[in-house]
Amino acid sequence: MASPEIQIPKKYKAAVYDKPGSISTKVQELDMPEPGPGEVLVNLTHSGVCHSDMGIMLNAWSNLPFPTQAGQVGGHEGVGTIVKFGPGTAGNATVKLGQRVGIKWMAGICESCEACRAGFDACCFNGKVSGYYTPGTFQQYVVSKANYVTPIPDGLDSAAAAPMLCAGVTVYSALRKCGAEAGKYVVISGAGGGLGHIAVQFSSRAIGHRTIGIDHSSKKDLVLSSGAEHFIPIDGTPDVAAAVKELTGGLGAHAVLVLTANTAAYASSVDLLRFGGRVVCVGLPEGEDLPIKSATPGRIITKAVTVVGSAVGDRREAIETLEFAARGVVKTHYRVEKLEKLTEVFGEMEKQTLKGRVVVDLR
Amino acid sequence: MASPEIQIPKKYKAAVYDKPGSISTKVQELDMPEPGPGEVLVNLTHSGVCHSDMGIMLNAWSNLPFPTQAGQVGGHEGVGTIVKFGPGTAGNATVKLGQRVGIKWMAGICESCEACRAGFDACCFNGKVSGYYTPGTFQQYVVSKANYVTPIPDGLDSAAAAPMLCAGVTVYSALRKCGAEAGKYVVISGAGGGLGHIAVQFSSRAIGHRTIGIDHSSKKDLVLSSGAEHFIPIDGTPDVAAAVKELTGGLGAHAVLVLTANTAAYASSVDLLRFGGRVVCVGLPEGEDLPIKSATPGRIITKAVTVVGSAVGDRREAIETLEFAARGVVKTHYRVEKLEKLTEVFGEMEKQTLKGRVVVDLR
Amino acid sequence: MASPEIQIPKKYKAAVYDKPGSISTKVQELDMPEPGPGEVLVNLTHSGVCHSDMGIMLNAWSNLPFPTQAGQVGGHEGVGTIVKFGPGTAGNATVKLGQRVGIKWMAGICESCEACRAGFDACCFNGKVSGYYTPGTFQQYVVSKANYVTPIPDGLDSAAAAPMLCAGVTVYSALRKCGAEAGKYVVISGAGGGLGHIAVQFSSRAIGHRTIGIDHSSKKDLVLSSGAEHFIPIDGTPDVAAAVKELTGGLGAHAVLVLTANTAAYASSVDLLRFGGRVVCVGLPEGEDLPIKSATPGRIITKAVTVVGSAVGDRREAIETLEFAARGVVKTHYRVEKLEKLTEVFGEMEKQTLKGRVVVDLR
Amino acid sequence: MASPEIQIPKKYKAAVYDKPGSISTKVQELDMPEPGPGEVLVNLTHSGVCHSDMGIMLNAWSNLPFPTQAGQVGGHEGVGTIVKFGPGTAGNATVKLGQRVGIKWMAGICESCEACRAGFDACCFNGKVSGYYTPGTFQQYVVSKANYVTPIPDGLDSAAAAPMLCAGVTVYSALRKCGAEAGKYVVISGAGGGLGHIAVQFSSRAIGHRTIGIDHSSKKDLVLSSGAEHFIPIDGTPDVAAAVKELTGGLGAHAVLVLTANTAAYASSVDLLRFGGRVVCVGLPEGEDLPIKSATPGRIITKAVTVVGSAVGDRREAIETLEFAARGVVKTHYRVEKLEKLTEVFGEMEKQTLKGRVVVDLR
Repeated sequence: MASPEIQIPKKYKAAVYDKPGSISTKVQELDMPEPGPGEVLVNLTHSGVCHSDMGIMLNAWSNLPFPTQAGQVGGHEGVGTIVKFGPGTAGNATVKLGQRVGIKWMAGICESCEACRAGFDACCFNGKVSGYYTPGTFQQYVVSKANYVTPIPDGLDSAAAAPMLCAGVTVYSALRKCGAEAGKYVVISGAGGGLGHIAVQFSSRAIGHRTIGIDHSSKKDLVLSSGAEHFIPIDGTPDVAAAVKELTGGLGAHAVLVLTANTAAYASSVDLLRFGGRVVCVGLPEGEDLPIKSATPGRIITKAVTVVGSAVGDRREAIETLEFAARGVVKTHYRVEKLEKLTEVFGEMEKQTLKGRVVVDLR
Repeated sequence: MASPEIQIPKKYKAAVYDKPGSISTKVQELDMPEPGPGEVLVNLTHSGVCHSDMGIMLNAWSNLPFPTQAGQVGGHEGVGTIVKFGPGTAGNATVKLGQRVGIKWMAGICESCEACRAGFDACCFNGKVSGYYTPGTFQQYVVSKANYVTPIPDGLDSAAAAPMLCAGVTVYSALRKCGAEAGKYVVISGAGGGLGHIAVQFSSRAIGHRTIGIDHSSKKDLVLSSGAEHFIPIDGTPDVAAAVKELTGGLGAHAVLVLTANTAAYASSVDLLRFGGRVVCVGLPEGEDLPIKSATPGRIITKAVTVVGSAVGDRREAIETLEFAARGVVKTHYRVEKLEKLTEVFGEMEKQTLKGRVVVDLR
Repeated sequence: MASPEIQIPKKYKAAVYDKPGSISTKVQELDMPEPGPGEVLVNLTHSGVCHSDMGIMLNAWSNLPFPTQAGQVGGHEGVGTIVKFGPGTAGNATVKLGQRVGIKWMAGICESCEACRAGFDACCFNGKVSGYYTPGTFQQYVVSKANYVTPIPDGLDSAAAAPMLCAGVTVYSALRKCGAEAGKYVVISGAGGGLGHIAVQFSSRAIGHRTIGIDHSSKKDLVLSSGAEHFIPIDGTPDVAAAVKELTGGLGAHAVLVLTANTAAYASSVDLLRFGGRVVCVGLPEGEDLPIKSATPGRIITKAVTVVGSAVGDRREAIETLEFAARGVVKTHYRVEKLEKLTEVFGEMEKQTLKGRVVVDLR
Repeated sequence: MASPEIQIPKKYKAAVYDKPGSISTKVQELDMPEPGPGEVLVNLTHSGVCHSDMGIMLNAWSNLPFPTQAGQVGGHEGVGTIVKFGPGTAGNATVKLGQRVGIKWMAGICESCEACRAGFDACCFNGKVSGYYTPGTFQQYVVSKANYVTPIPDGLDSAAAAPMLCAGVTVYSALRKCGAEAGKYVVISGAGGGLGHIAVQFSSRAIGHRTIGIDHSSKKDLVLSSGAEHFIPIDGTPDVAAAVKELTGGLGAHAVLVLTANTAAYASSVDLLRFGGRVVCVGLPEGEDLPIKSATPGRIITKAVTVVGSAVGDRREAIETLEFAARGVVKTHYRVEKLEKLTEVFGEMEKQTLKGRVVVDLR
């Protein structure tokens, strides 16, 4: 039930994918949705723009079960305020009217399938993905599950919180799966990218790894200023594995996070490890999904290494990510744009001229 | 110091690889070695014959650093009795004169390199492999490290213990790494082989998995009588992944152990898993070491699965393996041959007509 | 929405605690409740009777925040059939109309507090305990959370399933926390009791421990026939720790489960362990809550042992427990009584003349 | 074999406990020992002085099996240089002649008992404790196991390294066992002491915990400057548990390390935890070894908490501790004294006037 002071309009503004398969969004008015039982209505003020949104808009991923439909509202890094509860929901929820909350890639999970019971949110058999067959966060209002929205801690700016809900959670979850304790060597492949520069901060500053960033030489300053102990430029380093070994006492790293969708980054990943090390796969290649070249039984067995996949993170990791951001341990570089500029932003993303993240102001 | 009652001859019998690269062994007399500080001399009575011995004899593995030399004594599943301690060793060892002990693939580790400190015996930087640049167990006497030989529990026949020291330890260690608790579905690929039939027993009878064996249809009876809940014949099953899913409530297995060196078994392995599942790589392919076909970033990430390598096991796992064998929980099928028949045994192995294991009687 | 074929009466039969603090229940008619959003109405056919029900009826536990009120419907081991969904619930639930489901101690959790997010169901800040301030299972109909009821597998009798929902889950969860792998020694303290005889089965038959049961000598046959390798009678064993050491190669057990509320069982628990071992506390003492006598810093530090608490289990463990029961790996001894006999059953329980479990037939 | 350049005298200087049971040490000349097989002779330059040395000198711990004998050389935080190998040792060791190495509490383990195989160095059935029935580090030369001495990393001063070998390793190991990830709340009880101020640094700076230090108000500055987020003075805080809850969002800490031998610190420890939290016991009480008052079954079960013991650390933890010290992540406050001042140092320790650690210069 909405409190008397909160005015909810009948119509509101949203950006939809009007021509899925090409870079195009259109801002239009939509009818206000009604939250059902167990749901809340959130008045969004900000949404991050993620590379995955472009993947969905362009139908770029071969592993998506269905093509994106015209009229889809994209976006999965939304922050706003709860303005209404569905019937019978307010009393049972741990969130409150007026509370600031976030919507992330997994917008809702069923809480009862085998994947949910095992804590694999991203594998929920009935999960809803924000911005893909579920209306996303490129809009002023969104309906979401009351027990699955992410509370935003006080003292964290809404615009700064938005990218943490996807990029932040994803790298934090991947780092938790990498098996490396404080003081161990962790290679971040794609260290200067949207995910990468946050991963370097989490790895170096939150968890205490000795971080080695790999990326194009133009990203060197960003990577080192994010906390990396060493930087290896992919351009101009003929043998990346040798370079990693030299920096790690001759043995190789304890863990490697592959955050790019780059096939070459995957191809060398296992070779950067010491015995017992771990590769965490995060970057989802667009186009053909090829085997990891260095993932051969011979290498995997004789070095006793592990290759593991990590897709986004779970609810608890989202909350923990935001706590680190609220404490100032990790930060993201972003600029703010109006919703009307969304198509242009995707254009920059495609041309790879985009620096840092863009957060769309929905007010 | 040898006890007065134990007579140690000057010469003893050994089988050497006289023509590495081809199937040939020659029985000859060797001079009795002297145990150094920290070492023991073991009078071997039995040695298992393992497929890996043939790999070393034939120089079949591309990942071995050096070719095997003529005169190498092979073998790495030896059982015998301690007959002498090196200087200053008896008082500091936990084994005793006359005690029955085993020698396994890792014959000795340095106890002080980073791999040893981390519990990765097989990755020891200074490790000695029995039967490869360290005299093995196809001989009547062998010198080994006092603190690294494996005590053989009372009540376990020496011939029965021998294959447990390699095949047994290897599959037990791999099962410990598979991440599946009691009651979970575990697929054993190569379930009717020398490793496989022991793995099925460990999985089903020791750890309580619901085991699904995959092998050629001729192995069905062996696999089911070893405790598997289901058997899938590779011949006559066009879609093994579909077959596994049907047996596991539509989701796939929690873990897959690939015990064969067969590329096709690896190729499908990831596809047999449910979300969060794990492939354990054990079988070391001979010839070219190709990427695992199903180990693509897309599959690994979206199903959040893990691929991990396991080579033999550590000292503690050797002891635990023998405890299970002594309790009768796991058994191996073997026949006993004299040392002089060793070349013939390898011949059977090459022609794939060998059933079960062969244990050589060295007395 | 109820299907047209399912007839739901206006009134139904329930047993209430009419005089909390004393052993007394009264069967009376209650009005049919209506499931709210996210809820289901379950037509119960069976409910187990647990010692904890008596604790609640008698207000015996000092750590309960409020005294039980007159009119409370007790019970927390219920099995029945879903007959109606709350509004907006049927489409989003993974359970179906007509499906057989169970209600356990934790009848519902909020899914969003920190304890829920961390997987600690029993510590949910907003959790509902069946039969304590939430109507329980000593009645023909109960309302429960759609995504939290436990599906009952086909082939498992409803009466047999009931005790598994509390006693079964509790010991299975405790065993999962004991840290002992297959082949390790696990002591079950209170091995012949309602929890104990199921724990012995899980430990020995499901997980593959070498189980040592401790209880009064009259329970010897039950304990050994449940799968224990050894039995130690508390009457007639002056030094239980010495007896455990003798059975475990002189070192002590890898883990001890204390399933009784007996202070003496706790007092010796740490002394039964080897270095690195673990005590799992399960039995909640009635009356004063005294320190564990053997839990001294000196003992805990020098033996590097762990003491951990386990209360009931989570949703996933409930499902796994029932899978083991459906496969016949674990069984419970029970007799069936009509609801009208409930007070008499509690009377037997108090006099300690009750053998095995009682399941109340609610039809 | 000693290199020709290294001159080893026949006699050397050592401090012995001449009157065990009272505070007294005597410097005298001893005959040079000869390293046996598998051993090295170390020319010590520095040794830390630890409170545990005083415990041994005074026979203060009730759990020590035998009283300390007159003539015992104490000390277990020694740093020096390898000057000689025992027979047959140099070629098999990973340390080199002239290498700087450390001797810690566990001076040697057997590498083959069940505790060693399980990675519990401190529980080794045949372990040697430096300074207790094994000559310690209050002397210029000591014999130790070649594969168990701790290499000292370049760039770390020998005097600074010494206290890390006991105090550093002990707290690092305890923190690794506390189960709290980066970003979680960890209480250090005794935060201003010799162990405590290093623990606060490891917790806050190496592992990324949010650390809450508890100690006497006089230690506030030291604790906060060591990196603690909060400080709670035991004097003037009537309800420590309430104070911890207030600082941790009302829930309590994720972990508590009890580094003092103070019974009151243990008594409240469990009450400082949130659900699922963990107490790590480190401080070994002198005198009577009493049960932990808050370790009651009721509290442990309903909050699902864990109490675990940690004694010193293992070899690998020693090396990792020194790596953190060499990187400047953790530092200890110490002053250097000559060996002849040792009795006076113990006197200060007894009067509790000692600030920080003392390192004895043995040159």
